Amino acid sequence: MGRLSTLFAPERVAVVGATDSEGSVGHAVTTNLLDSFAGEVVAVNPNKETVLGLPCYDNLAGLEDPGSVDVAVVVVPPTVAVEVIENAGEAGIENVVVITAGFGETGSDGAEREKRLREAASEYDLNLVGPNSLGVMSTPVGLNATFGNLMASDGDISFMSQSGAFITAVLDWAAERDVGFKDIVSLGNKAVLDESDFVAEWGDDPDTDVILGYLEDINDGSSFVQTAREVTQDTPIVLVKSGRTDAGASAAASHTGAMAGSERAYEAGLDKAGTLRVESVQELFDYAQILAGQPLPDGDEIAIVTNAGGPGVMTTDAVGDSDLQLAQFGDETFSQLREEMPDEANIYNPVDIIGDAPAERFETALETVLADDSVSMAVVVACPTAVLSFEDLSERIVEQQERFEKPVAATLMGGKSVDAGANVLSEAGVPNYFDPARAVGSLDALRRYREIRTTEYEEPTTFDVDRERAREILESGARRGSNRLGVEAMELLDAYGIPTPQGDVVSSPVEAEAIAEEIGDDVVMKIVSPDILHKSDIGGVEVGVPVEEVRDTYEDLVVRARNYQEDATILGVQVQEMVDLDNGVETILGMNRDPQFGPLLLFGLGGIFVEVLEDNTVSVAPVSENEAKGMLDDIDSAPLLRGARGRDPVDEATLVETIQRLSQLVTDFPAIVELDINPLVATPDGVQAVDLRLTLDQEKL
Amino acid sequence: MGRLSTLFAPERVAVVGATDSEGSVGHAVTTNLLDSFAGEVVAVNPNKETVLGLPCYDNLAGLEDPGSVDVAVVVVPPTVAVEVIENAGEAGIENVVVITAGFGETGSDGAEREKRLREAASEYDLNLVGPNSLGVMSTPVGLNATFGNLMASDGDISFMSQSGAFITAVLDWAAERDVGFKDIVSLGNKAVLDESDFVAEWGDDPDTDVILGYLEDINDGSSFVQTAREVTQDTPIVLVKSGRTDAGASAAASHTGAMAGSERAYEAGLDKAGTLRVESVQELFDYAQILAGQPLPDGDEIAIVTNAGGPGVMTTDAVGDSDLQLAQFGDETFSQLREEMPDEANIYNPVDIIGDAPAERFETALETVLADDSVSMAVVVACPTAVLSFEDLSERIVEQQERFEKPVAATLMGGKSVDAGANVLSEAGVPNYFDPARAVGSLDALRRYREIRTTEYEEPTTFDVDRERAREILESGARRGSNRLGVEAMELLDAYGIPTPQGDVVSSPVEAEAIAEEIGDDVVMKIVSPDILHKSDIGGVEVGVPVEEVRDTYEDLVVRARNYQEDATILGVQVQEMVDLDNGVETILGMNRDPQFGPLLLFGLGGIFVEVLEDNTVSVAPVSENEAKGMLDDIDSAPLLRGARGRDPVDEATLVETIQRLSQLVTDFPAIVELDINPLVATPDGVQAVDLRLTLDQEKL
Repeated sequence: MGRLSTLFAPERVAVVGATDSEGSVGHAVTTNLLDSFAGEVVAVNPNKETVLGLPCYDNLAGLEDPGSVDVAVVVVPPTVAVEVIENAGEAGIENVVVITAGFGETGSDGAEREKRLREAASEYDLNLVGPNSLGVMSTPVGLNATFGNLMASDGDISFMSQSGAFITAVLDWAAERDVGFKDIVSLGNKAVLDESDFVAEWGDDPDTDVILGYLEDINDGSSFVQTAREVTQDTPIVLVKSGRTDAGASAAASHTGAMAGSERAYEAGLDKAGTLRVESVQELFDYAQILAGQPLPDGDEIAIVTNAGGPGVMTTDAVGDSDLQLAQFGDETFSQLREEMPDEANIYNPVDIIGDAPAERFETALETVLADDSVSMAVVVACPTAVLSFEDLSERIVEQQERFEKPVAATLMGGKSVDAGANVLSEAGVPNYFDPARAVGSLDALRRYREIRTTEYEEPTTFDVDRERAREILESGARRGSNRLGVEAMELLDAYGIPTPQGDVVSSPVEAEAIAEEIGDDVVMKIVSPDILHKSDIGGVEVGVPVEEVRDTYEDLVVRARNYQEDATILGVQVQEMVDLDNGVETILGMNRDPQFGPLLLFGLGGIFVEVLEDNTVSVAPVSENEAKGMLDDIDSAPLLRGARGRDPVDEATLVETIQRLSQLVTDFPAIVELDINPLVATPDGVQAVDLRLTLDQEKL
Repeated sequence: MGRLSTLFAPERVAVVGATDSEGSVGHAVTTNLLDSFAGEVVAVNPNKETVLGLPCYDNLAGLEDPGSVDVAVVVVPPTVAVEVIENAGEAGIENVVVITAGFGETGSDGAEREKRLREAASEYDLNLVGPNSLGVMSTPVGLNATFGNLMASDGDISFMSQSGAFITAVLDWAAERDVGFKDIVSLGNKAVLDESDFVAEWGDDPDTDVILGYLEDINDGSSFVQTAREVTQDTPIVLVKSGRTDAGASAAASHTGAMAGSERAYEAGLDKAGTLRVESVQELFDYAQILAGQPLPDGDEIAIVTNAGGPGVMTTDAVGDSDLQLAQFGDETFSQLREEMPDEANIYNPVDIIGDAPAERFETALETVLADDSVSMAVVVACPTAVLSFEDLSERIVEQQERFEKPVAATLMGGKSVDAGANVLSEAGVPNYFDPARAVGSLDALRRYREIRTTEYEEPTTFDVDRERAREILESGARRGSNRLGVEAMELLDAYGIPTPQGDVVSSPVEAEAIAEEIGDDVVMKIVSPDILHKSDIGGVEVGVPVEEVRDTYEDLVVRARNYQEDATILGVQVQEMVDLDNGVETILGMNRDPQFGPLLLFGLGGIFVEVLEDNTVSVAPVSENEAKGMLDDIDSAPLLRGARGRDPVDEATLVETIQRLSQLVTDFPAIVELDINPLVATPDGVQAVDLRLTLDQEKL
């Protein structure tokens, strides 16, 4: 059990601010605890003698054996909350649930109070939930330490929410469905405990089968990724991260002050974390229910059994929309179905056992397809007919599901007439929807989770690099007082084994000529100045310069730079071998830092692909080899790297390695805030980083 | 009223094949009719004296005044069905519903029977539904001429389905919701009446507010487009067209023998028809309900009113996912909200009136935002709290919705506790969902329908072209016995005003030189032969040929062609001016014919865009100017035509006109089966069709 086990399984709970005045939060919390909590409830309130029949104490210190209180629930006014929490810490209480509002969500006084809350929690090593929380629940011990009016029913789902109102809504909705919970926590302002803590706790909890979350931001993206990635190997994590859209993000900022991390970073980070991210409340619970109720499939192949052609076609379309595959039955299955089913039946997948099918025929068909090794899961789609009992059918579905231990979902297409059957299915954890698309979507969620679970999380490769040399280059840039480095820092890439064209930055025509002679061919020459961002625009780039013209060109470039800006710092001129673009594909490899998730790598094809078609992909560094490969797969224009239109494919292995090497560089140096290699030319023989720009945060060096 | 009005509003219905043997289809149909039909039911069965208390007649001819029977429902065995239908026709009966199965869906005997059915219907001008149909329903007269076990309840939705089982499922499901129907028809095999007929009928029916359909194919795409386009100006048409995916399409083919029209053609055709195509059963009814219950908005701007921040953010995300816009309130609205709402409320959209809001506060906020001219619609999102009555809230929502006549949807986020409120909303036609995404999605459907309704359907422009010359060119190609024409037919494009580069196809070196001299610059030369498809591959194309080399090049090209295939038909050599590709964008403009929808135009950018990125769009010809413009907007790479990356934008007007001119050409000549202009080079000064290939169906010439 995790560090928070006593929070969710306390034996003694104190309500600080308990009261019997109806309609108050203190009254609601105390009543809720008394209603169902299996342990002892202690009331604390200096203004009361008794509360709801309980003796009432002035403060936590006044209790007999205060250290045996597992959880203090704080509902006092915000101005005294910090003191109460310090008391709790002094008394040796481990867990504090701060329901009180009026902290970070309410301006500068509140923010100051929240800071002190955090300090107190840190001093006493408190597990502090909130502030501004609805409270916590845990069904095994009947703990309802919230001011809501409903208690969750028993179940295997643990649920955290950054919106208390959403918890009340979900409980109300779940009350008439068979949706039960293990623990529920209203995260509030997340001053101390946040999503990573609860994910870690529930990952260790054998009674939690599925972790659900409604989040508006993530406190620490990197720590979340690390924690979730481990937990998701055993326990699926299904999340709504709202504020996905621009409008939603500003609404979230005004609701919880959610930090405006970029949506692309969240997308990449939550993906790397191995979470199942969903976009709607409906999906959240559809996924939770099937993950809690059904085993994982051992493949992607689905069989459809139906008594109705049309709905069978709709179901097949839903399969086509998903990442599932229609199962191809084995010969034995066909011959068995041919024998068992009427002549008019369609024994190919979708199996249409036609309108006069009673429940027995459904069962026979389901049994036959589930027995087929090429079938990983099944969906049963049934329309109401005079000869079909939905209840009988449901019992048979459950029986076959349990026998073969393959996931099954149902689409009983009716209203009242399906109720009895739906109950049978629900009790057995078999999801059932009127719309076949939802049944298939749920089964596809199992497939996604299976994919997450079977992904080998390899460690990022550590390449042998010259880290010291890289540091020197960054420091020499910093010493010049500039936060922006360009081609003068190309050696940084060399130090990390990222190939660059032959050449150097030089500071005289003679040196320039020497380099060109070394290269032995026409060269590219570029002015190098931190003050000149768009070199081409001022004539600061010359391509295809023959050796004999190198000296003059050097002078020309400097003159043009001076004409553009008289006092520009000129670091010299870069003389570089020509890169053969005819056989190469221009790509862009870059990085910027996200406030939540840290370094975010960007990869795409250069020119129109990134600029016009916005065809690029991002990934949270450090990336493993597989993740780097995945970035190549992610872009629509990937075929252009792979030999489309009769060209030779580029050296993909080196490209993938280059992504990993850049990942290592930006992970090693948090001082690199932004970096762009544009273009990174990929050819059949390797890659070449032709141009570089980066921004430094000198304080992090 | 339409031609089918007596089918849905009969006074006298005969059941041919009526029987009292329970469990039979004839019994079910007769019982259903007797149960609720307001008119007279007549039983016909040569083997019975009476059926269910009705006198029974031997045949339709034996009835008194048989011509006054409005609908004959046929449930006799397939072998005698044709005779019965002929009898009905002779007796002057207008409408026949053939429930009997065993026709086209069952092999060659059945197909032959279906052909005879069609002939009989044509001879007597019968409105024939089916065969292989569940039957028809119409609630105003209590008509249930089906063998299902449920009758629809009253409503404004008319529903056609190519799956009878889906109708039974929907009726069962609708029975416990407030979903009512005007007419329902099970289309069966669509031997005579099909979707176009019912769309036309319901378009004329003042009691049908929304037309719903489940279709697996469309009999005649062009006629459907024409009919639906007109109807949708008054009555929305919401369709599931299944078999969208490859897997679904083959399932549909095995279910109803649906013809395998291409999904892209359906997509383009249903779009042109002005239908709202949906992908799931859930959407089908979500859309139907809001279209039947709410007025159309006069804009895209939505206001959100909620008592809960988190659900407010989720709703905002849903708006971000849709084509709706968050309304920007006017100053007066802000000052009013500031006055009316508590200080802690967020008066910006989404309006968060906070957790202690009673129903009155919801109403005040809703009233204030609906009164704002910049608000076209609203969604109310309410979480359960101790101070909120959902029923009270719902009444107030309805009141404000009706007062302002702007569409409103609700998200009452709870279970049992919302039932009373949900009923109030449902009776008033205000949709309500637990998931805010569905509420927003439904409102977005209103926006889509409003867009369809306000689209001006202009007629395609008829350009002044040389149709006779075009015919001659096609005929001369046909006379050569070849179905494939190439650049030798370029004049076809000239005849339709599509610019081509200067040049001609010639058959001697001397003529070639003359053309080149006329052009007065280097030229492109290509071998012209119907036997050589890939000219470049055999060295059959030379670019940048100077005038003095034209004669030799002519000989070279012919030699290479002969080397490739000794007996190839060589029509000559094309000598063409060079097209300046540096200032142009290569596009592709093509056409192929779809079995259902006819000529389908394709447009995209050339090279990687079409081949690798599959970035192209299709449209059903003939296209209007706006539709042609729409094709440009549809492709992702459109910015490349519009001056991306510092280039001059191409002459879009001429490009749009060229699409329309090609549209006219392929509409004028059904004999053109396929056609490709590749490339069609677009420059700032116009377009040039550089290469042409087409396939002819000579019989249609």
